Amino acid sequence: MINNEIENLIKLISSLPGLGKRSARRIVLYLLNNREQKMYSISEELKNVAQSVKPCQTCGNLDTFEVCTICINENRDHSLICVVENVADLWALERAGIYKGMYHVLGGNLSALDNRGPKELNIESLLDRIKSEKIKEVILANSATVDGQTTAHYIASRLQGSNVTLTRLAHGLPIGGELDFLDDGTISQALKGRTSI
Amino acid sequence: MINNEIENLIKLISSLPGLGKRSARRIVLYLLNNREQKMYSISEELKNVAQSVKPCQTCGNLDTFEVCTICINENRDHSLICVVENVADLWALERAGIYKGMYHVLGGNLSALDNRGPKELNIESLLDRIKSEKIKEVILANSATVDGQTTAHYIASRLQGSNVTLTRLAHGLPIGGELDFLDDGTISQALKGRTSI
Repeated sequence: MINNEIENLIKLISSLPGLGKRSARRIVLYLLNNREQKMYSISEELKNVAQSVKPCQTCGNLDTFEVCTICINENRDHSLICVVENVADLWALERAGIYKGMYHVLGGNLSALDNRGPKELNIESLLDRIKSEKIKEVILANSATVDGQTTAHYIASRLQGSNVTLTRLAHGLPIGGELDFLDDGTISQALKGRTSI
Repeated sequence: MINNEIENLIKLISSLPGLGKRSARRIVLYLLNNREQKMYSISEELKNVAQSVKPCQTCGNLDTFEVCTICINENRDHSLICVVENVADLWALERAGIYKGMYHVLGGNLSALDNRGPKELNIESLLDRIKSEKIKEVILANSATVDGQTTAHYIASRLQGSNVTLTRLAHGLPIGGELDFLDDGTISQALKGRTSI
């Protein structure tokens, strides 16, 4: 006989990715014991962020401004576009802290299974940017999955004849990875792409 | 260069029990992609629950009413009080669905380490209830930890000389548990408490 409103909140929270009923119950009890510091502030922040965050008009990154802080940053290289599948991938690249160019968020991959064709992705806007801005290089940072590589291949075919340099991320051993645990595909890619020391 | 407001929300969510930075990021991106169905409703529910839920005046259970739905339920046995450490334990007992008496939430255990004495727990209100209501049995459902058993022992000593029956939960094999994996204490308790079949 848990109170209905609490039960409802637990249900909502347990529907978030990675959470289940048990972890949601734990979170709700924790929040009820920390109402002032956590519960009200999370409620407030959720509303604020939901209202103020929107996709950047240029690259599709999520930000509170019409044009995101990356696109507007004069210290970054505006002649370089890194094409990513989604905002999570953009964040991952930003955390690595080495890339200082622009981005373009596709919003997914081509997928026959999910019925997602080129029109569902932000590909036309990418082609427009390449035409209108002075882009020298486009890095296709799609995932190394079948759908990711299909999408990269499609974009590459659409860019044939243009003057931009097309590159993709290197395939090989992840840092800390042991050969023994890697799949054959990764090992053969690492061999093919070997560099001199 | 993640937007500050988003970063702030991620930080808040990652401070919840069981969540880290990575899972918080995943949750925030999921919420941003499901603003209408999830983000606004969770924000709203958090605020509602934080405002409306309070501890029951009688037993300490969390509910939207001054006296909780368990205490007010005429179909439950009002002569039986089950003493639990916290609301999570109360919910666990309710989920089992077999107990139909009243509860009393202590709000923790006696702990010399955490400097928590009898006055920090709802023990006096329990004694008052036992005096004023017609209580026949008090079940001490404290955890089988040192602090839990110390607390149970203290409550038992305070109830000496009163007419109520004092009981505690059975110790033994958990359902699905294998003997091989159980500690010696549990096995000896299970042996001592063996029942005829």
